[in-house]
Amino acid sequence: MLGDTNQLKNPLSNLFNRYSHKVGLPPGTLVYVGDERTEPTQITQIDYNESYYHENIIEMIEECETFKNAETVTWIYIQGIHEENFIREVGEHFDINSLVLEDIMNPTQLPKIEVFDEYTYIILKGLSYNPETYSVSDIQINLIIGQSHVILIQESGEKLFKPIHDRIENQQGRIRMMQSGYLAYALIDLIVDNYFVVIEQISDQIETIEEETITNPTPEILKKINNLRGQVLLLRKPIIPLRDVIEEVLSEEIPILKGDIDLYYKDVYDHLNQLIHSLDTLRICASGLFDTYSSALNHKMNEVMKVLTVVATFFIPLTFIAGIYGMNFKVMPELEIPWGYPVVLSVMVLIGITMFIFFKVKKWL
Amino acid sequence: MLGDTNQLKNPLSNLFNRYSHKVGLPPGTLVYVGDERTEPTQITQIDYNESYYHENIIEMIEECETFKNAETVTWIYIQGIHEENFIREVGEHFDINSLVLEDIMNPTQLPKIEVFDEYTYIILKGLSYNPETYSVSDIQINLIIGQSHVILIQESGEKLFKPIHDRIENQQGRIRMMQSGYLAYALIDLIVDNYFVVIEQISDQIETIEEETITNPTPEILKKINNLRGQVLLLRKPIIPLRDVIEEVLSEEIPILKGDIDLYYKDVYDHLNQLIHSLDTLRICASGLFDTYSSALNHKMNEVMKVLTVVATFFIPLTFIAGIYGMNFKVMPELEIPWGYPVVLSVMVLIGITMFIFFKVKKWL
Amino acid sequence: MLGDTNQLKNPLSNLFNRYSHKVGLPPGTLVYVGDERTEPTQITQIDYNESYYHENIIEMIEECETFKNAETVTWIYIQGIHEENFIREVGEHFDINSLVLEDIMNPTQLPKIEVFDEYTYIILKGLSYNPETYSVSDIQINLIIGQSHVILIQESGEKLFKPIHDRIENQQGRIRMMQSGYLAYALIDLIVDNYFVVIEQISDQIETIEEETITNPTPEILKKINNLRGQVLLLRKPIIPLRDVIEEVLSEEIPILKGDIDLYYKDVYDHLNQLIHSLDTLRICASGLFDTYSSALNHKMNEVMKVLTVVATFFIPLTFIAGIYGMNFKVMPELEIPWGYPVVLSVMVLIGITMFIFFKVKKWL
Amino acid sequence: MLGDTNQLKNPLSNLFNRYSHKVGLPPGTLVYVGDERTEPTQITQIDYNESYYHENIIEMIEECETFKNAETVTWIYIQGIHEENFIREVGEHFDINSLVLEDIMNPTQLPKIEVFDEYTYIILKGLSYNPETYSVSDIQINLIIGQSHVILIQESGEKLFKPIHDRIENQQGRIRMMQSGYLAYALIDLIVDNYFVVIEQISDQIETIEEETITNPTPEILKKINNLRGQVLLLRKPIIPLRDVIEEVLSEEIPILKGDIDLYYKDVYDHLNQLIHSLDTLRICASGLFDTYSSALNHKMNEVMKVLTVVATFFIPLTFIAGIYGMNFKVMPELEIPWGYPVVLSVMVLIGITMFIFFKVKKWL
Amino acid sequence: MLGDTNQLKNPLSNLFNRYSHKVGLPPGTLVYVGDERTEPTQITQIDYNESYYHENIIEMIEECETFKNAETVTWIYIQGIHEENFIREVGEHFDINSLVLEDIMNPTQLPKIEVFDEYTYIILKGLSYNPETYSVSDIQINLIIGQSHVILIQESGEKLFKPIHDRIENQQGRIRMMQSGYLAYALIDLIVDNYFVVIEQISDQIETIEEETITNPTPEILKKINNLRGQVLLLRKPIIPLRDVIEEVLSEEIPILKGDIDLYYKDVYDHLNQLIHSLDTLRICASGLFDTYSSALNHKMNEVMKVLTVVATFFIPLTFIAGIYGMNFKVMPELEIPWGYPVVLSVMVLIGITMFIFFKVKKWL
Repeated sequence: MLGDTNQLKNPLSNLFNRYSHKVGLPPGTLVYVGDERTEPTQITQIDYNESYYHENIIEMIEECETFKNAETVTWIYIQGIHEENFIREVGEHFDINSLVLEDIMNPTQLPKIEVFDEYTYIILKGLSYNPETYSVSDIQINLIIGQSHVILIQESGEKLFKPIHDRIENQQGRIRMMQSGYLAYALIDLIVDNYFVVIEQISDQIETIEEETITNPTPEILKKINNLRGQVLLLRKPIIPLRDVIEEVLSEEIPILKGDIDLYYKDVYDHLNQLIHSLDTLRICASGLFDTYSSALNHKMNEVMKVLTVVATFFIPLTFIAGIYGMNFKVMPELEIPWGYPVVLSVMVLIGITMFIFFKVKKWL
Repeated sequence: MLGDTNQLKNPLSNLFNRYSHKVGLPPGTLVYVGDERTEPTQITQIDYNESYYHENIIEMIEECETFKNAETVTWIYIQGIHEENFIREVGEHFDINSLVLEDIMNPTQLPKIEVFDEYTYIILKGLSYNPETYSVSDIQINLIIGQSHVILIQESGEKLFKPIHDRIENQQGRIRMMQSGYLAYALIDLIVDNYFVVIEQISDQIETIEEETITNPTPEILKKINNLRGQVLLLRKPIIPLRDVIEEVLSEEIPILKGDIDLYYKDVYDHLNQLIHSLDTLRICASGLFDTYSSALNHKMNEVMKVLTVVATFFIPLTFIAGIYGMNFKVMPELEIPWGYPVVLSVMVLIGITMFIFFKVKKWL
Repeated sequence: MLGDTNQLKNPLSNLFNRYSHKVGLPPGTLVYVGDERTEPTQITQIDYNESYYHENIIEMIEECETFKNAETVTWIYIQGIHEENFIREVGEHFDINSLVLEDIMNPTQLPKIEVFDEYTYIILKGLSYNPETYSVSDIQINLIIGQSHVILIQESGEKLFKPIHDRIENQQGRIRMMQSGYLAYALIDLIVDNYFVVIEQISDQIETIEEETITNPTPEILKKINNLRGQVLLLRKPIIPLRDVIEEVLSEEIPILKGDIDLYYKDVYDHLNQLIHSLDTLRICASGLFDTYSSALNHKMNEVMKVLTVVATFFIPLTFIAGIYGMNFKVMPELEIPWGYPVVLSVMVLIGITMFIFFKVKKWL
Repeated sequence: MLGDTNQLKNPLSNLFNRYSHKVGLPPGTLVYVGDERTEPTQITQIDYNESYYHENIIEMIEECETFKNAETVTWIYIQGIHEENFIREVGEHFDINSLVLEDIMNPTQLPKIEVFDEYTYIILKGLSYNPETYSVSDIQINLIIGQSHVILIQESGEKLFKPIHDRIENQQGRIRMMQSGYLAYALIDLIVDNYFVVIEQISDQIETIEEETITNPTPEILKKINNLRGQVLLLRKPIIPLRDVIEEVLSEEIPILKGDIDLYYKDVYDHLNQLIHSLDTLRICASGLFDTYSSALNHKMNEVMKVLTVVATFFIPLTFIAGIYGMNFKVMPELEIPWGYPVVLSVMVLIGITMFIFFKVKKWL
Repeated sequence: MLGDTNQLKNPLSNLFNRYSHKVGLPPGTLVYVGDERTEPTQITQIDYNESYYHENIIEMIEECETFKNAETVTWIYIQGIHEENFIREVGEHFDINSLVLEDIMNPTQLPKIEVFDEYTYIILKGLSYNPETYSVSDIQINLIIGQSHVILIQESGEKLFKPIHDRIENQQGRIRMMQSGYLAYALIDLIVDNYFVVIEQISDQIETIEEETITNPTPEILKKINNLRGQVLLLRKPIIPLRDVIEEVLSEEIPILKGDIDLYYKDVYDHLNQLIHSLDTLRICASGLFDTYSSALNHKMNEVMKVLTVVATFFIPLTFIAGIYGMNFKVMPELEIPWGYPVVLSVMVLIGITMFIFFKVKKWL
């Protein structure tokens, strides 16, 4: 669902692989520390109120003038953060603090909120899951929420927020009647709803792997299990701090995020709590997979050993008897007896039947 | 005991499978997101005070007039939440906030309380356990507690609250003498009492499975154990937030739930604490099942290996001796001796006896 | 030590088996929900101060008059709670709240304290351990502590409090010089001291079982280990809430439990803390038993496998050699050589010796 | 290092074995509940200030007069607590609360602090480790810190505090210039420093056992591991409450332990924190030993199985071939061919080489 | 990256091996308790403001005069703490508290902050990881932050802070425009950034070892895993208390660390939080390695057993048949039949094929 994949593929490499580029650089330097990219950046501006709707794609950042207009809500949707100059221009045009710009260009941030006089800055993470590589990819979403505008800056990739766009365009729900604080809520809520989708996908995969594990515990499955365990651990990273962000929204006095929309943010907060509870269960289930794996392995070994034991204990005594009458002693009276051979064969069959019953009783057959 | 089963059957699928239907929809949309249903909705209205009792089944929601009468307590019992229009009518008739209506139609909510001026809204979950599918099913109960009425809205299914109905009808206990707050208490208390029944059933099943596990650790048992572990984890989901709800009832100033009935809610609170403590013990016991399983498996393997070892180490040396005298060397003096054969047989018997004693000492036989 | 055994025998069944009798009953109903009993109830009344001592067995509850006398401390010791009428009479005679009476008749309560104007009501649990059934039994002790009297109501069974009785009769220690608060302390302290005895017994048994486990890890031992684990878990149930009770005694303003005896209750509190710390260690040790069990099992399997391997790898090559010279080829020059047989035997002995040395080096013999 | 060993030898028995002696005795009875002892008690009195030093061994407690002298610091060092009369005399002479005397005679106390008007009473535990029995022994140290004197009462045994004695005698460091609060600090600090030694010894032993475990996982090692685990658990018992004691010293207004020496107590507090952190790591490492043990066991089994498998799979096919040509069919053309025997032998060698390569590839050889 | 290696090599020995040298010494003694060293100590002094820059290497501590000059920031960088006299001189020259000097000479301190009137003293730890010995080495950094100077004292070894030096010299970033508080921030930030590098290296190694573990679970790997587990545990030791230090900087009123640079310290605080979160994940992953190890071991055993079972169950029945026709009974009609031998061979081949199919179905081949 998200454009850039594999960012969280190996849980451990993902934890740290992007940070170290910047060690030793002076703070305050605008350097893009994400993966390399070449797509052009893109700006979409949507201007609306209850009765008015206008959307255009912007080439030069200077064209964004309308957002100062207090009578409409302006949503400026910027994709692509890897061009330093572009971000600097955006910062100058919209008068954004330089430390915020730094954060925007560094897609390894954890979710956080920073309240300024003119706007509130929120970082959150969009997640998507790729079931084939067992990997969660994340994408950093930056929200700058002003009195009558919301600037959304994301790493380049798929347009995540099309449903919101459509809802505005088609006047679905309350959104056209509300202020910028509601728009911000709608964007955050969409991201959080997507978390449920990701968790659901992972939980589906855990179930699939559980089946596989019981029937065929191979080292490949073990790797998958380890990967899943890691992914579930990593999921806490964007979700738990986001709850803290929303908690701060609820507790602090941020005028544009207060009032009648408080209720909506409380709803998001409840969802995040539910998510964290689910993550916990998921974590325990993913760990349980390992137990399942190791006892499936044991069970298979048991099966193998049973076959060996049945076959060996069945034939070894019989072979011994055959061995006895294969000895070359001059004087072995049994060998002379004409019905010696059939008797020995019958004894062998008898022993075989006894064995068979014994195995049946033991439930090894 | 509850009408709709299997909703929580697989712990993981249950965690999330109902939520994702709604991703991308604007908040405020009245959409039923539970399982599909066709039963008609049903309304029962019971009007009572110490000396008066009247019960009738209502066809049209407009017939509910008496609930505004402050001299009696009115209990309106609605079953079925899947008809959007019906819920909207109920909302309009009883003047219920539209966000509450949304919550009512979404049976995936966690327990919560919301205090409005005119009424208090409480969500809780009825649980039932199906020992055959190892599944806990839940059903969402919505309580709207007003000054002189309680509206109870549940998903369609069995009438859970018959005992309360009978107690009112037969004037058992205090209930006819008390206000709507006590009726709400009685309803909540019944649900909580049922939790004990569910936990007891699960704990019985854990015991049964423990027996089974020790005697016959098959992969099927492992699946059952995993399921049980998941169920016990899931049980925390409706119970822990309900405790928070009751805590809020106790701490906050809600007139209809205060005063002399405070004591009763404190009792419910104590029960919930006891339940959570029990859940903890249950969780540890369910995890212990896995340990039991894996060592029962080991024990079985031990048994198999012992048989193999006893048989193999018994016969292999004897077969070797037979092999020696099966060689075709021209000059093998033993073969010529008349009593060679009996001597070798005797040696074999002697070795056999020694082996037998060795195994006895090792306690392998 | 306690009269009624086996109440906590199976940890899981014990957790819940008594509660469900009462589901659906209206609160406020006086119903005995403990195990069935037929012993008569018994009342002993002891009246004492520094210089005075009088004890009598009471037939009719109406005979208890002296307890209103403020110059002596009156200890009324009631055994047996299963007769509803009797408890009701006691309640009326001593003017006890009906909810307290309900709690008295329900021996599944957790320890708690309730402060009324005229008296303080404390529930605690007497424990005893039966090493043969690996079961902890509990017995509910109800204390009603008034200005100059203590009413102690316990389930019928052994007289737990004989040591206190003797101390009063024989004027040992401070007890005859102190008020009812001290008597209550003495009773609680005795119960808490008994907890140490129970924990000590369990810890002894853990040691015994550890020995057994290492030498002989059978499924029966596994069952014992599971039982012990459960018991240790259950022990927290009466002890942790009792600490909260004592904490409340220390923090709240209850005149009869305050003043110079505060120090004694602090001592009980310290003991309970020590107990909880010990329980924690005990829990970890009981869990450790399982690890010990599973590696003792592994060790035994190792032993079995070693024997198999030694015997098999010793004889299989030798048998092969014998097999070669058992072949019936016309032209096998070795067979013709007179010293062929002794040479082959010598080679076998040599191989055998090499094997033996190999096993010795590997420390398998 | 400490005189009396083995008190904590078996972790579980140590937890409780001393307490139960006293169950049922009235509180306030002076009874020695430690191990039986016969050594005489011993009193040393050291009197010093910056310019003065005097030390003498005291026979009768009445000789201690100088401690009331405010111009010198008096350190009274008493060894032996098992003589009831002696402790009573000490109590009377120094005017010590009778409950404190009780605590002194009961060496099973946890560390605690009690502040009285005239003095402060601190209990702490001296520890020593016996690497041969894998046992930590503890010894109870009682400190009574007055305005110008410190009374130190320990169970009889080695003189633990010689370094402090020497420091005073030889005027090392600040001690001769400071008041009684500093002396108390010096004594406590010495004890805490010894904790580091004990932890270091245990950690050394964990390392040794880890080596042993990997090379030779026997049941004896398992017992050692269990013992070590228990010991590490027990170490928390004297250390964690001591931190609370020092915390109370730091927070409360105790004049003799305040002022410029606050800094020193803060240092002790930091050390205790470091110790508790180390204990945690130690605990995890000791638990890790068990994992190491169980996988070393598995590894050994693997080795055994590999040998069996290699030998068996090598010779079984060859033996089968030999078996074929050992059959006595009249018509077996191969047997008649002169080069039949060498061909079969060559085939066997070929199969052997193939096997060998197979095992090499599998890395089983 | 750091000069002195192996200090934390074995997790357990590292925990305690440096402390015990000092047991029994009076506090306040200046004794170097780190490892033995012989390198000379070295002092570099850098004096700068926005327009001025001067750097010189100092021979005698008396030459440092400029640091009192308030118009420039003076950074005095001292390497080497093992010469007692030198440290004493430094202390006298810069007027540093003697307890601070003691802490400087004891490189076993945990990070801490101490606020004095004239300066603030911060201890932190530089870390480096040696992937070959699997060891983290630490080096103690002491910061004394005054109004217009920062004295940095580290154990001798590599110059850790060259990047800061270069940034000042080359006027990169803000540093030349800021006060001493910013210099201190830059130094701390560099250390914290290095923590990310260390964690990244360890996480890389965990991945490498995971691969190795799955393919080849040897006891050497187990040792490596244990070492890594220990290292990850130890990493918490310098990081968690540093967070507390920064928290104190943020909360307390330290003028030189307040004001506009608060923001920078908050950034460091966020990084430390991220690190601690990562450590947690790392710890779980390192523990997971053990699980992986033990199931890789199991898997290998499974493989071995499968080969044994396949070979043994394949040939044992065939060998038995050969054994039968190797018996020497006079009357064995089958032996006389000319096509007896080919028939038996065919039967054997048939059995072989059946077996093969059976193994294929079982997926053992």
